[in-house]
Amino acid sequence: MEYFPAPLEKLVEQFASLPGIGGKSAQRLAFHVLSLSDAEAEAFAGAILEAKRTVTCCPVCQNLTAGGLCPICASSKRDGETVCVVADPRDVAAMERAREYTGRYHVLHGVISPMNHVGPDDLELKSLVERVARGEVREVIMATNPDTEGEATAMYTARLLKPFGVKVTRLAYGIPVGGHLEFADDATLMRALEGRREI
Amino acid sequence: MEYFPAPLEKLVEQFASLPGIGGKSAQRLAFHVLSLSDAEAEAFAGAILEAKRTVTCCPVCQNLTAGGLCPICASSKRDGETVCVVADPRDVAAMERAREYTGRYHVLHGVISPMNHVGPDDLELKSLVERVARGEVREVIMATNPDTEGEATAMYTARLLKPFGVKVTRLAYGIPVGGHLEFADDATLMRALEGRREI
Repeated sequence: MEYFPAPLEKLVEQFASLPGIGGKSAQRLAFHVLSLSDAEAEAFAGAILEAKRTVTCCPVCQNLTAGGLCPICASSKRDGETVCVVADPRDVAAMERAREYTGRYHVLHGVISPMNHVGPDDLELKSLVERVARGEVREVIMATNPDTEGEATAMYTARLLKPFGVKVTRLAYGIPVGGHLEFADDATLMRALEGRREI
Repeated sequence: MEYFPAPLEKLVEQFASLPGIGGKSAQRLAFHVLSLSDAEAEAFAGAILEAKRTVTCCPVCQNLTAGGLCPICASSKRDGETVCVVADPRDVAAMERAREYTGRYHVLHGVISPMNHVGPDDLELKSLVERVARGEVREVIMATNPDTEGEATAMYTARLLKPFGVKVTRLAYGIPVGGHLEFADDATLMRALEGRREI
């Protein structure tokens, strides 16, 4: 016995297939969609198709863009000699929010992860090497996450780029601003000590 | 400065407008949609439009249905003399899961709630009265939630139906199966005592 009409069940299933959405939430979301006006439901469905259809990767930095060069690669105000390498487009957004970085980016779309069968060839490393080989880039800042896989990816990429005579740096490790020494883990404290600076 | 391409931002906004979905979750969901295949994204958008377009209310019981009578109203196996009145289509699903009830339903689509400006006229009460007035119904089981608003709605509906000589009952209150006396609240315990039965 089905409890909801088939089209509603189908919508619940669609929502339930999204990451982090359980059965009960999926039901709530599907009922919410039914309560929308026709125009609102069409706007929602349209946004899905539109995003899927128009959002592509920037041919230079592989960041997401709505066709053509991304705004950062297209901007003449950004310093083309510095490239910040991140794993994910969301990391670009995080860096941009800090309003400190004025260079350009390169998005790898993943990290090297043998456990998940992701090797160097699955990442946007070839396009990064080509970019560096062209000779404009002076410094590559590796801004992958400070975990094992991000670390391995940073090391691998650095080795790959060294032959081109480019400077490869890594984001600083340390106590997060506003954090408590008391709650910092050993590895972070050790790195914070190693990276200490004169004041 | 926008961090994501406009169509992606728009999709994030759409997800963020859903109940219980915050900004970070909306971003995660939007990125998930981008990672879908074209066919999957179309199936998702299609499910929204299809559910919105085809799901209507059953002309008899007001439960959700994909056009025409709902399966329960259309079934000759269900006892048409008993009508269980619930506030929401999800409550029909809950009752059906119990596999105990063999009568029909009536969905009010809400409860009387002066705080939220919902009065009797905003509910599917008129259609319920008409149904009872037709004379087939012998018993109406009020299965609104056991909270203040559900209680008030049950009382109001009962008063409305009494003139037709129909029997109006209410779901039993008591300790939930598998519950602990220790954790039961006073009101529940009192109702459980009141409703005690000989064994």
